[in-house]
Amino acid sequence: MALIEENDLILIVHEGNRYLKKLEPKKNFHSKRGTLDFASLVGLPYGIRQKKFEVFQPTIEDVIMYGLRRETQIVYPKDGCYICFKLSLKHGDRVIEVGTGSGALTLLFSRAVGSAGTVVSFEKEERHQKNARKNIERFAALSNIDLRLADVSECDETEFDAAFVDVREPWYVMEKVWSALKPSGSLGMIVPTTNQVSDALRGIEPFFGDVEVLEILVRKYKTVAERLRPDDRMVAHTGYLIFGRKVTEHVTG
Amino acid sequence: MALIEENDLILIVHEGNRYLKKLEPKKNFHSKRGTLDFASLVGLPYGIRQKKFEVFQPTIEDVIMYGLRRETQIVYPKDGCYICFKLSLKHGDRVIEVGTGSGALTLLFSRAVGSAGTVVSFEKEERHQKNARKNIERFAALSNIDLRLADVSECDETEFDAAFVDVREPWYVMEKVWSALKPSGSLGMIVPTTNQVSDALRGIEPFFGDVEVLEILVRKYKTVAERLRPDDRMVAHTGYLIFGRKVTEHVTG
Amino acid sequence: MALIEENDLILIVHEGNRYLKKLEPKKNFHSKRGTLDFASLVGLPYGIRQKKFEVFQPTIEDVIMYGLRRETQIVYPKDGCYICFKLSLKHGDRVIEVGTGSGALTLLFSRAVGSAGTVVSFEKEERHQKNARKNIERFAALSNIDLRLADVSECDETEFDAAFVDVREPWYVMEKVWSALKPSGSLGMIVPTTNQVSDALRGIEPFFGDVEVLEILVRKYKTVAERLRPDDRMVAHTGYLIFGRKVTEHVTG
Amino acid sequence: MALIEENDLILIVHEGNRYLKKLEPKKNFHSKRGTLDFASLVGLPYGIRQKKFEVFQPTIEDVIMYGLRRETQIVYPKDGCYICFKLSLKHGDRVIEVGTGSGALTLLFSRAVGSAGTVVSFEKEERHQKNARKNIERFAALSNIDLRLADVSECDETEFDAAFVDVREPWYVMEKVWSALKPSGSLGMIVPTTNQVSDALRGIEPFFGDVEVLEILVRKYKTVAERLRPDDRMVAHTGYLIFGRKVTEHVTG
Repeated sequence: MALIEENDLILIVHEGNRYLKKLEPKKNFHSKRGTLDFASLVGLPYGIRQKKFEVFQPTIEDVIMYGLRRETQIVYPKDGCYICFKLSLKHGDRVIEVGTGSGALTLLFSRAVGSAGTVVSFEKEERHQKNARKNIERFAALSNIDLRLADVSECDETEFDAAFVDVREPWYVMEKVWSALKPSGSLGMIVPTTNQVSDALRGIEPFFGDVEVLEILVRKYKTVAERLRPDDRMVAHTGYLIFGRKVTEHVTG
Repeated sequence: MALIEENDLILIVHEGNRYLKKLEPKKNFHSKRGTLDFASLVGLPYGIRQKKFEVFQPTIEDVIMYGLRRETQIVYPKDGCYICFKLSLKHGDRVIEVGTGSGALTLLFSRAVGSAGTVVSFEKEERHQKNARKNIERFAALSNIDLRLADVSECDETEFDAAFVDVREPWYVMEKVWSALKPSGSLGMIVPTTNQVSDALRGIEPFFGDVEVLEILVRKYKTVAERLRPDDRMVAHTGYLIFGRKVTEHVTG
Repeated sequence: MALIEENDLILIVHEGNRYLKKLEPKKNFHSKRGTLDFASLVGLPYGIRQKKFEVFQPTIEDVIMYGLRRETQIVYPKDGCYICFKLSLKHGDRVIEVGTGSGALTLLFSRAVGSAGTVVSFEKEERHQKNARKNIERFAALSNIDLRLADVSECDETEFDAAFVDVREPWYVMEKVWSALKPSGSLGMIVPTTNQVSDALRGIEPFFGDVEVLEILVRKYKTVAERLRPDDRMVAHTGYLIFGRKVTEHVTG
Repeated sequence: MALIEENDLILIVHEGNRYLKKLEPKKNFHSKRGTLDFASLVGLPYGIRQKKFEVFQPTIEDVIMYGLRRETQIVYPKDGCYICFKLSLKHGDRVIEVGTGSGALTLLFSRAVGSAGTVVSFEKEERHQKNARKNIERFAALSNIDLRLADVSECDETEFDAAFVDVREPWYVMEKVWSALKPSGSLGMIVPTTNQVSDALRGIEPFFGDVEVLEILVRKYKTVAERLRPDDRMVAHTGYLIFGRKVTEHVTG
C-alpha cells in the first residue's frame, strides 16, 4: 500500500481545483479556506479527505495537465487518449512521433507501449526538445523514449507500428512517414485550423486509406446531485484529429 | 510483415463504410460498385487499395464496433478509451469491472493491462456473460480476463488498482467497490440518464473524492479537402461518465 | 377561439412524430396504433388530446419543417430564427434576400417584417423560384414578398435595412449587397463548408465590419421525467452562419 | 439615413470586443491601441471604420448583451430568439411572461409583438421589477409592455397567444398558465438544472402536449480566413428550454 512520503508529488483537490505539489514538509498548502499541513500527511496512505482538502496519488492526467512546463501548445489528454486508441497502441509497440513539442503525447505513448515498446520522437527545435526532455525526466523514465533532435527525413528506421505527426505542415512528411510504417500501420495528425485539415487531406490521400477527420469535445458537469447542470463554459476547440492507415496501391491482373 | 492469410479477419473499407469479414476464399465481397476477390488477396501484405476497396488489419476499434455481438448496450470506444485513461490503466494493473455486459470494455481493459495484468469482471446475467465470453474468445485471449457469474458482493479480493461499474443502479455497490480498491484507486461509472447521475452522485460522495461528471462527444467530418464540413448527423448521447478516487476520511488530532 | 374546420391544415402529434395534414373529412389519419377520425374533429377548438393523438394549429415551424416542398437544401428554423435575430428584423423593415431557394427563410422574413415591411428575394433558377412561390402561396400571403427571377446585380433599390445571401459563392455579391444596404445595416450568409467560410471572410472584409462566424446546434432530449437523457442522435451540421454590418472607411483629416 | 448624434447610444467594435457607449462628446473612447474621438463622429452616418475602430447603430442584441443591468441571470439572445420562434410570436400577439427578471426576454417579446401587441409580465420581487423597468425604459418604450408586481395567480386575463415561464419552480403555475392561454397556444420555460427539467416534465404533462426539451449551443469561430478555427472556449450552458402547446383532453363517444 502506497504511503505518502516526503518529496512525493501529490495531488491536492480543494474547492473544486486541483494542485500538483511536491510534498516538502516545510511548505504546506495554504488557501483562503485553510491550511493543509504537509508534515501531518507523511506516513499516511494516499486517498485522504481532511476537512476541505483531498490528497491523491497523481495520475498521468494530473501530470500532463498540471505538471508539464508548456513551451508549445500541448496535446490535451482528451485528444491524447483518443489518439493512443486510434493508433491501436499496445504493450511492445514501436511508435514514431514527428514533433515532440512539450512531450505530453510522448508521455502517453511511452506509457501505452510500456517497457517492451519504443517511442522515437523527432523535434527540430532544440529549445522544445530540451523542455520536453525535462518534462519527461521529471515524471517518468526515458527508458523507452528516444528523443531525436532532427528532421524526420533523417529517420532511417522502418516497420513502426504507428505514427503521429504534430507539426505545422504535416503534409510534407506524409511520404516519409508512410515509408517508416508497417503495412496497414496507423497514422494520426493534429492541426488547429480547417485550412490545415484541407491541406492535410490532400497530402494524406495517396499514402493512407480509411481517412477520418474528427474533433473530441468533453462536456463537464457540476457535481451537485440536487442541481445537476453542465459547467457554464467549456473548452470548445483544441485541434482537429486526422487518422489514416498505410495503404499500397495494388493493381490487379 | 503481416501477410493476408485464409480465414484472417480483415477490415474492408468501401465507399465510406467499414466491414469486418472473415477471409473465406470462396466468399468474396460484393457491393453495387464491384466485387473484391478474396482469393486474390491471400499472400499480400495488409494495407491494400484495389479499385474502390481498401483492406486493413482490424484494430481493436474495428473489433468492438463491427465484430461484437451486442446483447446489451455496449460502451462505445469513444467512451471506453477515455475510461481507460481516467482509470490510469497501465501494463500489469488489476482492474475490477462490475457489469460485463457484452464485453466491449472488458476487451479494452484486457488490452490496457496486458499479459502482466488482470481484469476481474462480474456479471449477474448468465445470458450476457455467455455472450461476452464468446465475443472475447473470438477476438482475443481470455488469459488475463476472469469472468465471474456473480454479484460483486461476492468479491473477496482487494487492492485493485481501478474499478469500473456499468449497472443500472451503481450506487448500491459503492461501498463494496471502495473496499476492493487500493487507497487513491480510481473508479469509473457510466449511466444513460440524468436521474441516475444525480443518484450516483449521492452514492459516491462518502467514498470517493475528486468526483467528475462528463460526456464525450465526437464530431466527425466529411473528408473532402475542397468541401470540408461536419457530417450531417452525429451520435449525440451514449452515456454520462462519472469518475472518482477512493478516499478515506482522516480526522486530525 | 379558433375552431377546427374542414380543409384546415392541422398538426397531428402521435407517438413522438409530427404530421402536417389537410383535414379532409373523408381521409382520416391512420397509424399502427389507431385511427384519428377527422370528421369528429370539425367544430372542436384546437389543442386536443384524444387517445394517443394530439391536434394543434400549425406554427410557422411546423409549416417549414413538414409543409414545404424542398427543391434545395432549406435553411432550418434553428438557423432561420437566429438569422432574423442577428439581422434585427422588426415590423416594417425592408430586407433583401439573395437566393430564394425553397422559400423557407423568405417565409420567416415575411413574418418578421410584417404587413408594413417588404422582402425582396432574388433567385436565378426559374425552377427554384416556381417551387418557392408555390410553397409561399400555400402557407402565407405574398403580399409583402417580392420574388424576382433575376441576378441580384439587377437590383437597383437601396436603403434596405438588412440583407441575407444564400448562394454558392456569396463573395461575388458583397459589393452589390453593400450598396443596397443602409449604413450600419446587417448582412447574413450561410454556407455549408469551411472552404466557403474562408472565401466569404476574404470577400466580406472590405465591406462589412463586426464580422462573426458561428454554428447553431440544437440538442434535444427525450421527454421522460424519470429517465431524462439526450436523444441518441442529433443534427450535427446544417451550415456556417456569417454576419457583418455595413461599414464605410472614414479617413480622418 | 441615420446620422450619429450627440447622446446617441453607439456600438464600438475594437480589437474583437464590443462596447455600448453613450456618445458624450467630451468623453471619447480610450484603449491601449488608440483613442476614438467622439466629437469627430457627430454628423457622420452610422457604420464607420476609422483606424482600428468601428462604430455601428446598436441592435437589440447589443442592448441585451452590453446594455442591461443584470440583477438576475438573463435569458441570453441565443435562447431568447429561439423562444420567440417556438412561441410563434408575431405582430399583434398577446404574450404573458411569468418572471420578468432583468427584462431581457421582455424586450425581445415586446419587439416581436410590436405596437399592435401586448406583453404582460409578472414579477414578484419588487427589486427585480424596478431594475427591469429601468432597463426597458432606457432602451425601448414601455408602450406595449405591462409590468405587474404580482404573482401570476392574480392574473385574470385569458386568451393569450403564448406564455413563457422563467421561475425556479415553474411546475406550480402550469394550471394557471394553461387557463390564461388560447386553445393550442404555445408555452415555453427555461430552467438551469436537469432536476428541474424532470420536475417540469411531470408538471406540464396534464396540460400541454407536443412537449420538447432542448438546449441551444452557439459555437463561434475566429474570423481569420487563412486560419479558420473555433474559439478556444465557448458558453457550454445557459439553460434547458422546455416547450409545449395547450391541450384539452377530448373524450370521444
